[in-house]
Amino acid sequence: RYFHFCKLPGRVMGIRLLRFTSVVIIVLLLVAGALTALLPTIKDDKLPNSRREPKTQSQSALDSFTLIMQTYNRTDLLLKLLNHYQAIPHLHKVIVVWNNIGEKTPEDMWNSLGPHPVPVVFKVQSVNRMRNRLQNFPDLETKAVLMMDDDTLVSAHDLTFAFSVWQQFPEHIVGFVPRKHISTPSGIYSYGSFELQNPGFGNGDQYSMVLIGAAFFHSGYLEDFQRQPEAVYALIDETQNCDDIAMNFLVAKHTGKPSGVFVKPVDIRNLEKDTNSGYSGMWHRAEHLLQRSYCVNKLVNIYDGMPLKYSNIMISQFGFPNYANHKNKM
Amino acid sequence: RYFHFCKLPGRVMGIRLLRFTSVVIIVLLLVAGALTALLPTIKDDKLPNSRREPKTQSQSALDSFTLIMQTYNRTDLLLKLLNHYQAIPHLHKVIVVWNNIGEKTPEDMWNSLGPHPVPVVFKVQSVNRMRNRLQNFPDLETKAVLMMDDDTLVSAHDLTFAFSVWQQFPEHIVGFVPRKHISTPSGIYSYGSFELQNPGFGNGDQYSMVLIGAAFFHSGYLEDFQRQPEAVYALIDETQNCDDIAMNFLVAKHTGKPSGVFVKPVDIRNLEKDTNSGYSGMWHRAEHLLQRSYCVNKLVNIYDGMPLKYSNIMISQFGFPNYANHKNKM
Repeated sequence: RYFHFCKLPGRVMGIRLLRFTSVVIIVLLLVAGALTALLPTIKDDKLPNSRREPKTQSQSALDSFTLIMQTYNRTDLLLKLLNHYQAIPHLHKVIVVWNNIGEKTPEDMWNSLGPHPVPVVFKVQSVNRMRNRLQNFPDLETKAVLMMDDDTLVSAHDLTFAFSVWQQFPEHIVGFVPRKHISTPSGIYSYGSFELQNPGFGNGDQYSMVLIGAAFFHSGYLEDFQRQPEAVYALIDETQNCDDIAMNFLVAKHTGKPSGVFVKPVDIRNLEKDTNSGYSGMWHRAEHLLQRSYCVNKLVNIYDGMPLKYSNIMISQFGFPNYANHKNKM
Repeated sequence: RYFHFCKLPGRVMGIRLLRFTSVVIIVLLLVAGALTALLPTIKDDKLPNSRREPKTQSQSALDSFTLIMQTYNRTDLLLKLLNHYQAIPHLHKVIVVWNNIGEKTPEDMWNSLGPHPVPVVFKVQSVNRMRNRLQNFPDLETKAVLMMDDDTLVSAHDLTFAFSVWQQFPEHIVGFVPRKHISTPSGIYSYGSFELQNPGFGNGDQYSMVLIGAAFFHSGYLEDFQRQPEAVYALIDETQNCDDIAMNFLVAKHTGKPSGVFVKPVDIRNLEKDTNSGYSGMWHRAEHLLQRSYCVNKLVNIYDGMPLKYSNIMISQFGFPNYANHKNKM
């Protein structure tokens, strides 16, 4: 029909139809072009040609956490725990700090047993140091760190809840193991747990530290840790202990508040006895607690004061495992 | 000896001694004068002649709270409770909201049984209204209010702890009785407690309100309550109920966060059965819970949206009554 119309140049009606058709076609092309331009921006604010990722970078950084687990001489426990922890909700990545110097990591075996829910990176260390786990790992992409000892099993329910608590208290160490210091008339401090007298502020007990071997804290504190006095590193290296006490000092100094928030675990287990390695963990050394009291006093010298503050807040999950945990006569 | 020396005017030694003695006496007088001038200013920085008061005004305002207890037809319970509550640590004053219209308050009897640890004021009401207790009483001098129903006994330990928690969360209603709303596919809300399905955010339960009949909150919220839409007062007056739900809406709107923080009570008792009055409290009315669901939906209309937010944080006192409440296998 088009040619037909063209062949009748003198016909006004033909020219009108031609113009009309052209206009319609042009309009349709414009509409199609507009739709093509609009649709991707409504659905997706990424640049074209970028690979599809389940979440944007910034969302993951806030909504998920990185597990950092240091391991020494307990690879059987490590692998058992990794099977559990790799499936925890909101986990972004696992960083295994490999303190087995000169020994190959189980990375090949790990990969051969894939695929895995999250990436796991093995960071091979050159020296077996307790404070290796407190490096500011470039692999860290999240704001939150979950630090776990390689013999500690905490249930997914506890971790999910504690993570939600951390999100409400991001400047604190939110974890499952509370400890305290007490001062004595001589001015010398002592480190301990419930067995020590309470600090005397009314009834009940108090805690002034939350241990980082089962806790969430802000990844920014790993950055801060790199800027501490040399004497702190020397102390931790000398004792192969007390990195967690040092972190509590750091956080307390930074916030001016109690460093930790204690979340009461429903299901936390120590798997030490289950290892085939025969290795039973640093805290069994005879001098362990004495060392920690020693560390508290040394750190007070280094930081020129005692920054730790007491708290008696204990947080549990409302109605879990069931409503009996809060139901009362009212 | 003095006259003896005077009578020997020509004696040089006498004149020297005279000068020496005079100097000594003058010095001693000066020292005494200095001591007299110094001592009061080191000990006491108040203006002279001001009456001795245990604390400055501003200290009391922050470190103590005012108990507001509304009462209707249960004067026996009221007096029993006042004997208990008047001795709670950090209590500044008690305000009794007297809803027994036309009936004399027990003020004379109260005074005859003095002295009492704190002042108690009886605010005689002209109409028996549930919301009488939410007036912005001029007698209020503290930042914190403890509001108690006249049949509720909470232990001093619980109150002392909850007050310390409120001081860490002053914009929230910190109390012992959690409740929640749930939404249904129809968009209609329902009010209830643990018996309702949890709102479905993972495991465990959630709460979105903390009832003010056993709770601490900031006195500023009483001020805010005077500035609510008329429809709110009409609703509370119509139902003689729901003033606490309205307060939770107010606080949630103000903070954009969950209105309450639930502190799990160790020892909370309802003394209803102990009254001689035969009066058993509003919540026994058949329509009580239905009314509260009705109120939730009306308030959503009045405030043009649902401001209540869920929380699953349950706070307990670490190591009280004993360390068994937190000790675990770790």
